[in-house]
Amino acid sequence: MGNCMGIRNFCDRPKNTNVRWRLPAVCFVWQLSMIILFGVFDVHVMIFVGFGFLMTFLKRYSFGAVGFNFLIAAFGIQWALLMQGWFHSLDYTDGKIKIGVENLINADFCVAGCLIAYGAVLGKVSPVQLLVMTLFGITLFAVEEYIILNVLHAKDAGGSMVIHTFGAYYGLSISWVLYRPNLDKSKHLNGSVYQSDVFAMIGTLFLWMFWPSFNSAIADHGDGQHRAAINTYLALASTVLTTVAISSLFEKTGKLDMVHIQNSTLAGGVAVGTAAEFMLSPYGSLIVGFFCGIISTMGYIHFSPFLEEKLKIQDTCGIHNLHAMPGVIGGIVGAISAAAATNTVYGDLGLENTFDFTGPFAKRVPTIQGGYQAAGLCVALCFAIGGGIFVGLVLKLPIWGDPADENCFDDEIYWEVPEDEESVPPIVAYNNHMIPNKHVKNVQQTSA
Amino acid sequence: MGNCMGIRNFCDRPKNTNVRWRLPAVCFVWQLSMIILFGVFDVHVMIFVGFGFLMTFLKRYSFGAVGFNFLIAAFGIQWALLMQGWFHSLDYTDGKIKIGVENLINADFCVAGCLIAYGAVLGKVSPVQLLVMTLFGITLFAVEEYIILNVLHAKDAGGSMVIHTFGAYYGLSISWVLYRPNLDKSKHLNGSVYQSDVFAMIGTLFLWMFWPSFNSAIADHGDGQHRAAINTYLALASTVLTTVAISSLFEKTGKLDMVHIQNSTLAGGVAVGTAAEFMLSPYGSLIVGFFCGIISTMGYIHFSPFLEEKLKIQDTCGIHNLHAMPGVIGGIVGAISAAAATNTVYGDLGLENTFDFTGPFAKRVPTIQGGYQAAGLCVALCFAIGGGIFVGLVLKLPIWGDPADENCFDDEIYWEVPEDEESVPPIVAYNNHMIPNKHVKNVQQTSA
Amino acid sequence: MGNCMGIRNFCDRPKNTNVRWRLPAVCFVWQLSMIILFGVFDVHVMIFVGFGFLMTFLKRYSFGAVGFNFLIAAFGIQWALLMQGWFHSLDYTDGKIKIGVENLINADFCVAGCLIAYGAVLGKVSPVQLLVMTLFGITLFAVEEYIILNVLHAKDAGGSMVIHTFGAYYGLSISWVLYRPNLDKSKHLNGSVYQSDVFAMIGTLFLWMFWPSFNSAIADHGDGQHRAAINTYLALASTVLTTVAISSLFEKTGKLDMVHIQNSTLAGGVAVGTAAEFMLSPYGSLIVGFFCGIISTMGYIHFSPFLEEKLKIQDTCGIHNLHAMPGVIGGIVGAISAAAATNTVYGDLGLENTFDFTGPFAKRVPTIQGGYQAAGLCVALCFAIGGGIFVGLVLKLPIWGDPADENCFDDEIYWEVPEDEESVPPIVAYNNHMIPNKHVKNVQQTSA
Repeated sequence: MGNCMGIRNFCDRPKNTNVRWRLPAVCFVWQLSMIILFGVFDVHVMIFVGFGFLMTFLKRYSFGAVGFNFLIAAFGIQWALLMQGWFHSLDYTDGKIKIGVENLINADFCVAGCLIAYGAVLGKVSPVQLLVMTLFGITLFAVEEYIILNVLHAKDAGGSMVIHTFGAYYGLSISWVLYRPNLDKSKHLNGSVYQSDVFAMIGTLFLWMFWPSFNSAIADHGDGQHRAAINTYLALASTVLTTVAISSLFEKTGKLDMVHIQNSTLAGGVAVGTAAEFMLSPYGSLIVGFFCGIISTMGYIHFSPFLEEKLKIQDTCGIHNLHAMPGVIGGIVGAISAAAATNTVYGDLGLENTFDFTGPFAKRVPTIQGGYQAAGLCVALCFAIGGGIFVGLVLKLPIWGDPADENCFDDEIYWEVPEDEESVPPIVAYNNHMIPNKHVKNVQQTSA
Repeated sequence: MGNCMGIRNFCDRPKNTNVRWRLPAVCFVWQLSMIILFGVFDVHVMIFVGFGFLMTFLKRYSFGAVGFNFLIAAFGIQWALLMQGWFHSLDYTDGKIKIGVENLINADFCVAGCLIAYGAVLGKVSPVQLLVMTLFGITLFAVEEYIILNVLHAKDAGGSMVIHTFGAYYGLSISWVLYRPNLDKSKHLNGSVYQSDVFAMIGTLFLWMFWPSFNSAIADHGDGQHRAAINTYLALASTVLTTVAISSLFEKTGKLDMVHIQNSTLAGGVAVGTAAEFMLSPYGSLIVGFFCGIISTMGYIHFSPFLEEKLKIQDTCGIHNLHAMPGVIGGIVGAISAAAATNTVYGDLGLENTFDFTGPFAKRVPTIQGGYQAAGLCVALCFAIGGGIFVGLVLKLPIWGDPADENCFDDEIYWEVPEDEESVPPIVAYNNHMIPNKHVKNVQQTSA
Repeated sequence: MGNCMGIRNFCDRPKNTNVRWRLPAVCFVWQLSMIILFGVFDVHVMIFVGFGFLMTFLKRYSFGAVGFNFLIAAFGIQWALLMQGWFHSLDYTDGKIKIGVENLINADFCVAGCLIAYGAVLGKVSPVQLLVMTLFGITLFAVEEYIILNVLHAKDAGGSMVIHTFGAYYGLSISWVLYRPNLDKSKHLNGSVYQSDVFAMIGTLFLWMFWPSFNSAIADHGDGQHRAAINTYLALASTVLTTVAISSLFEKTGKLDMVHIQNSTLAGGVAVGTAAEFMLSPYGSLIVGFFCGIISTMGYIHFSPFLEEKLKIQDTCGIHNLHAMPGVIGGIVGAISAAAATNTVYGDLGLENTFDFTGPFAKRVPTIQGGYQAAGLCVALCFAIGGGIFVGLVLKLPIWGDPADENCFDDEIYWEVPEDEESVPPIVAYNNHMIPNKHVKNVQQTSA
């Protein structure tokens, strides 16, 4: 950053006071760095705390949820930095990859796709399989993203297509190939307990809060970024209410289901991912959020059982309802919004700025852009399903140490779980220094 | 934002290098946007994670605490955006409400008042009642805020009066109208367990950490904002120590009570809400925090039982100790600090800038301002108590699906709680795949 | 801040349009304030949530972990503000201490050292002892920091020496003096349960995510700060993978141990603390992280038992593995990187800027700087061990109310723990409103 050097000189030698170029440059570069730098941490919180805790809802797979999420993210970030470096630095003459703060945020985005995919196979694969899945996932992501954003020049700031559609169908395809007909052997572990549901809400809330940052992190700075944040915020707020409404409507006696509150409340953020930076208007965002809350919650109630029974896709976290359907909706909403964009709404230079109709794409018009957006959605689907089936076949090889059907959803397999449950009744895991004996004593007394 | 357009032009057409007006404008607008944008997320964390988890302390109402908090906030934000839009856009000719990032932070502030009120009725009302309470609460808030800040021109950056006093007395008045003489039927659920207290500490810490952001978010940018953050920080630090001291002093054998640590440690932040942006001085902030820690903790020990037994106000979270008393203290401290402000302390333009003695208020002097601050406190109290009694009467109608006295504080009523406790002993909720049988077997062996 | 005044004048009286000096000054000061302001909160999150929750892993000491951490931090911050004020304001003529936002972040750094030390004695000391330990710890820290950073002019942005080495050996020395030969009397409580391990992961993840902010918070703004963030990020990512590898390699049947995942994954961040702002290169950071993950995890497996049995140092959280060893490594890496720095790598003014070779240190060269860095490490060790032994002896006085050997690691001693375990079996702490009777009834029926 030669600019920073410039400003130092300027402090030392005050005679040259012409800062017309250097000062704006420094202000710009610094401000952009700060935006990106804070964006990184915000997005970081979603990746590590958000995704990690969202998956802790299973009663005995919280270590796996938060721990393997951590492992995937830490590995994926590094691999993504390399992949992106190779992809975007082919013209560099020294062959070295430069890592700036911007790359870190892109790496987080890459990783998000793999973490979404993890949701489909949660509890059914080994950490080795997860690393393999991440290795291929990041690679596929980098190619797919390059084609959609650079070749097709589609816009996808929040990644409805690039991240959510890709990640979800990648995971679902893998889960389809790895179908376990006898998974009900571990059915007793495939559910939540009271505390694990509260832990999962930590994930939900951190995802919900920072989703506007996520969707606006790589949007065009300035107007586009503000629009993306506000549109996402409104879509999310709207989704919460329809999720609660549908959850209560379809459950017996109008009770709410934690699974819906934990997941479907986020669907609006997924669905405005592509269109968030467009002139969707508050009204449009609220409508998208409204319908996504309904569709996602209905998905959990009606579509997930169908997926498992008819299509043989076992989807532990219900990513089809949270990421796949809303992601596809997001892609379609994006294509329509782009096709419908006019100079009247966007202002004089707004269209050019929002869609980057510059350079080789200078002659594009909104309707054509809408077609390319739709093409982008197809590319995401093809890479996800094709790649997922291939990776699923690789993961079917009997060398990866995956758990038996009766050991799925059980941390015991890959973790040293405190309190050996064979010797001490698990109740005492809660407070083992007095109960075991006491308890047994009580029993003896009672029976005496 | 025409400014952003300006800077783009400047990039495209470098011939016009006169950026004297455009560059400062862009720098300013961007920097302010960033401050506000990050402010939004910080405040967001308080609203969703802070308030939500603070109320998870009840052993079987964590779903309700964090889930209904989420619902109230998501609905309240939208309603607040509309209310504020109507209030502040009467002079717009096109009748449309413009939503900028500044509005989002104000919406969070509105919602905070309603979430405080929720603390008083936690576990005793239905989600429908909560939505009604939020609808009226936001409406009252918008009017009350307009009168205090715009008509009276009182200053209240951290909302001691506007948010805390209003929110707390609004909730307490509702709770008074909804008094349940037989609430002890669900006494066994009106308490914490070990893990729920740890969850509540998540709420406490996120509130504590981001309170300086909250109090400084709408303070005058620059000096005032820094002062607000530092004063709040010091008041909070001081409160922690006196809370620990009083908690230990009044409990048998000097033990600490988690209820005090979770709540009273935040009282200092409430009490410097109004005066935080004034020249309170570090010394003054520490003193305010010192006394608020004492008063709030003493409130939990002595005043809450009195409130319930004599005044018939059942206050689940003790918001009288955390928000009502410190809020009123904050209003009084603010009035005194304003009345005592002098040019000597604030510097040449400091008084004008801090108190905005401009336009129609150009002739105000500090002593008069102090009077208006006190008037603001009265307005907050009137709206809170009057509005609360009215809304309480509305909520007394037998149509809202509120729980019976013996079902208060129980998530079972409104949530699908994992593990049906009728058929399986709740212990096994912790790990139900091996104990039930085993346990029974053990017992049989012992008794054989 | 006269600059802000300047800009106000500029708005009121537009005739004087010469902003060449004022505008850059305002931009700079504001931007730096923002960086620092957000830095404060980020670091705050580490201090209160990160350290607090990291120590909740014990089954019955979560209140003590998060509550006493809160107390230490709130007291320590205030004491640190005073200590730093006295140290850096000797030349002020009015004798008053000015508190700016920069001071708050430094106070957080001071406190971090004491919280690290708390990890060694967790569960074995009284809150009064913790306050005494903090009082002396902050004082020693302020002197040690002054000598290392100002007198020796060593660089230590992330505090490998100043914070981690000092804090860890300070705590270990105190623990050595307070050695309890009969600590195994409370062995049954010195371990985790399932939920407490999940709570601890909240701490781990917040520390992990914000560590780049921590290491870069006081680095030279601009280049140095970006480098510090990126280097830390890469070191941390690398550490996660080697920690998982070693944990799996040395545990029976390849299982992972939560203790390692919670702690060793952070070792890379400690070890790049000093060198993070140097030209360590991504490659170097990855290598440092790689080896620290190995060393730290091996430390938990092999070195901690040795420390306890042979050296009589009881280290509850294993801070020797997370802070002491990586901190010393960080100091050495820093000394070597400094000694090896060349103009070729750092660019023309890079050396001067990175190492602040200005004023009285204008003649320093990298090799000499390397020597001073090593001297800094020695100073940190001397202050830590000497100070720790002295404070340990003070804490051995029988007046501080520390727990008996059989009551260590038990919240019961200092906290009102919900649910009296004498009268009700602890299982029902999970849900006590129906089990006790039922359960006993079941047993009776079985035995009948």
